[in-house]
Amino acid sequence: MSRSDLPAAGAAAASHLAPTLTSGLAATDGGAAALDHLLALRAALGEAAVLIGDAVPERNRNDNSSQLPVRPLAVVRPADAQGVSAALRACAAARLKVVPQGGLTGLCGGARPEDGWVALSLERMVGVQEVDTASSTMTVWAGTPLEAVQRAADAAGLYFALDLGARGSCAIGGNLSTNAGGNRVIRYGMARELVLGLEVVLPDGTVITSLNKMLKNNAGFDLKQLFIGSEGTLGVITRIVLRLHGKPRCTMAALCAVDDHDGVLALLNAARSGLGPLLSAFEVMWPDYWQVVTERAKVQAAVAPGHGRYVLVEAQGTDESVDAPRFQAWLEALMEQGLLKDAAVAQSLSDVQGFWALRDACAEFFQVIGPHISYDVSLPIGAISDYARECKAALLAEGIAGRPAGAGIESIYYGHIGDSNLHLVAWSDGLSLPEQPKARMDAVIYGLVQKYGGSVSAEHGIGTQKRKWLGHSRSEAEIALMRTLKSALDPQGLLNPGKVI
Amino acid sequence: MSRSDLPAAGAAAASHLAPTLTSGLAATDGGAAALDHLLALRAALGEAAVLIGDAVPERNRNDNSSQLPVRPLAVVRPADAQGVSAALRACAAARLKVVPQGGLTGLCGGARPEDGWVALSLERMVGVQEVDTASSTMTVWAGTPLEAVQRAADAAGLYFALDLGARGSCAIGGNLSTNAGGNRVIRYGMARELVLGLEVVLPDGTVITSLNKMLKNNAGFDLKQLFIGSEGTLGVITRIVLRLHGKPRCTMAALCAVDDHDGVLALLNAARSGLGPLLSAFEVMWPDYWQVVTERAKVQAAVAPGHGRYVLVEAQGTDESVDAPRFQAWLEALMEQGLLKDAAVAQSLSDVQGFWALRDACAEFFQVIGPHISYDVSLPIGAISDYARECKAALLAEGIAGRPAGAGIESIYYGHIGDSNLHLVAWSDGLSLPEQPKARMDAVIYGLVQKYGGSVSAEHGIGTQKRKWLGHSRSEAEIALMRTLKSALDPQGLLNPGKVI
Repeated sequence: MSRSDLPAAGAAAASHLAPTLTSGLAATDGGAAALDHLLALRAALGEAAVLIGDAVPERNRNDNSSQLPVRPLAVVRPADAQGVSAALRACAAARLKVVPQGGLTGLCGGARPEDGWVALSLERMVGVQEVDTASSTMTVWAGTPLEAVQRAADAAGLYFALDLGARGSCAIGGNLSTNAGGNRVIRYGMARELVLGLEVVLPDGTVITSLNKMLKNNAGFDLKQLFIGSEGTLGVITRIVLRLHGKPRCTMAALCAVDDHDGVLALLNAARSGLGPLLSAFEVMWPDYWQVVTERAKVQAAVAPGHGRYVLVEAQGTDESVDAPRFQAWLEALMEQGLLKDAAVAQSLSDVQGFWALRDACAEFFQVIGPHISYDVSLPIGAISDYARECKAALLAEGIAGRPAGAGIESIYYGHIGDSNLHLVAWSDGLSLPEQPKARMDAVIYGLVQKYGGSVSAEHGIGTQKRKWLGHSRSEAEIALMRTLKSALDPQGLLNPGKVI
Repeated sequence: MSRSDLPAAGAAAASHLAPTLTSGLAATDGGAAALDHLLALRAALGEAAVLIGDAVPERNRNDNSSQLPVRPLAVVRPADAQGVSAALRACAAARLKVVPQGGLTGLCGGARPEDGWVALSLERMVGVQEVDTASSTMTVWAGTPLEAVQRAADAAGLYFALDLGARGSCAIGGNLSTNAGGNRVIRYGMARELVLGLEVVLPDGTVITSLNKMLKNNAGFDLKQLFIGSEGTLGVITRIVLRLHGKPRCTMAALCAVDDHDGVLALLNAARSGLGPLLSAFEVMWPDYWQVVTERAKVQAAVAPGHGRYVLVEAQGTDESVDAPRFQAWLEALMEQGLLKDAAVAQSLSDVQGFWALRDACAEFFQVIGPHISYDVSLPIGAISDYARECKAALLAEGIAGRPAGAGIESIYYGHIGDSNLHLVAWSDGLSLPEQPKARMDAVIYGLVQKYGGSVSAEHGIGTQKRKWLGHSRSEAEIALMRTLKSALDPQGLLNPGKVI
């Protein structure tokens, strides 16, 4: 449909759409021009592709970052890269800011619109295009839910290794935009390491189709790296070639107790050398976390309380008759050496799931400990325990009205320690979520991250929520280089501006 | 030493240095100014750090790309990032072009100077700064030879997985600049996947110190990715945090014969699923390669000739008592299924080395087959065999003076097929190296790479030698984006210009 087929543009069109417009879009000259561009885009992409004003669904008004929803001016839902390109060109012409949206499960505000923005949702770009078993690759649309990717790989006799709690609703494109991590990074790497090719649309509408399937390809700069982990600020990912692995044929797991962080480090080194690449998870829980999960959440534990650290060790093998006895023998040797103070080995898949229930119980913390704030940081592995001890003491020492001295902010610790990734949950009892002293928690937690040379974001990204703290982990020169890249690719500053940097 | 301590600048200084200057540097105003800047740099960094004119050693005049040497104006050899920064600032002020140099083993011209350039060599920035066993990382200077890195990891009870033939002389910084591959990519990834942090100096002299040790770190854009694989065109890598792995405790290897490419693919899938992450190499040799190596180079082979493909399969384990029998059983099952037509299993380390001798014999091809041209391409794994067949026929069909029709250019095929990486060697008998019809070989070989959707460089980079063919693997939009990045980081175009793009 050509532009001339459209209804009269500008104020007349705004009047035609009046029932759906409540934001005063057409009240200004700029607003009228913007509406004109959105209507032309609707004419080009179809009625279902552009929803304006009140027609914007609730889901496109927020991500999962616990902020108030904001209704964008419009939501655009293209069907392919050409549609994304048309949308970005229209928004550039109208000088409208754009936020890309996938599964909207992000925790840092990266996919949340702001007032007057357009949401560019990939919700219609869903599905697996191809599984290539010779190359061990899968080509998918960026809006495909992670779990659908995992299932398609499984159906082809292969394995897609990225896994995280939001698997049912997060989109693979969003996983790449945040360079998601999850439970099996120690073996398979972050999302970045599971990507071979990308199709991306740049802020000016240029489509970069780089659907490489080859493990080795050094023909010029590796452009895909720019778009992975940059939270939709440099381009919009539309299609992805994922790297698949051989399907694990058996899973072994043990719940171990050790005395202290030195015991954790010794166990980690023993796992790296004794299990080698079979090691697929190494999850550490501090006694404060263990107490909340076993006593307050009442999750059954196969190991008694009273130890310094609890570790869930998981390995994936290719032959149960060989790998399960090897895992058992490896553990027994560590018991004999005295490193392990207690240990339970899973005898069934349901045992494995039972061990993971202890680690996954953090998803239920709102029911268990009430309003709290969750943090995701990383630290050099050797320093994690000192960080946690100092952080816990500093949070308790915060003076909070109505709380006894030295019991200001409580906190508990756990995480993917083999990947240097610590999670912590902090709260002050008796306060609602808005009343929680988040700014003070941030200052203590990120202040100590800076002191210990860690990162304010291990796997959740920066978005808007952690932008203030980026300088605690990155130097001025690094942030200046990020800005140079942003300006080079998005000189008008229209694609997800104010996110990350 | 301040600028005023220097000898008189410009023409007077040039006269003072006359014995070392033969390039007419001081004959022009620009030359005099350039010399002035180089002398100031020498005053700042020390006598040994700046060698000018004839004092430039032979080694800094070329890389390993079989082109004629070019003496640069000067070689600068800083001792640290601050020295590199001073050198780049001086060159920017003098508008001198700069080529970064490491071990000078590159095959595509990336480290070769051009007339009037300054070579910035990292040869004095050598050594291991730290091995952190808790984090499993090593921090090294970029000029450190790869083999020294491997040995330092080994001495710490850990393993650095990158390995390639030039290990004794190539520098780890150069390995990163070309995103080197090598023999064990199928298990550990390219150089890129073995890097956690970098220190880099930008063309304007800005030092970016980003020596991250954490496996998970998503605090803003992952800037290091820009500099890995961009062949010294965007910045100069000065220090590196490498990721180490657990040391393999045993190595199993088998030499296998299968009927054809379908047999190769079936064996690859069986290795992926049956050996899982233990699979550490999957090297395929075509019968033409096998014939040259066993009959002309007289390398002993444990498998008889007459098969369609030969495959060297290697696995690294953690427990020989478990992993060696498993490997043997896995092979026996494939023999029983009829997939393997013949196979020999290494019974000792010397057997393993003997198998690898067949694959490594390509390093001796100048003695065995005389003057030839080596190629490094990648292709979707499923298409590799069709590519090789068509390429061989097309090369033979080239008409070469003095050669019978249909026997124009001979070629043989081998490579890291599990990584989609094919090597091939082409020659026309009786011709010297300069007489070899390289331009026609390039046209056939890269023309078919384009047809099959492959890459003109799997692991050697682009440099100057493959720049002409970059468009066969990358679209105009991709190359334009590479130029955007180059302009953003190096607006004056002084750092290794004309390389890659």
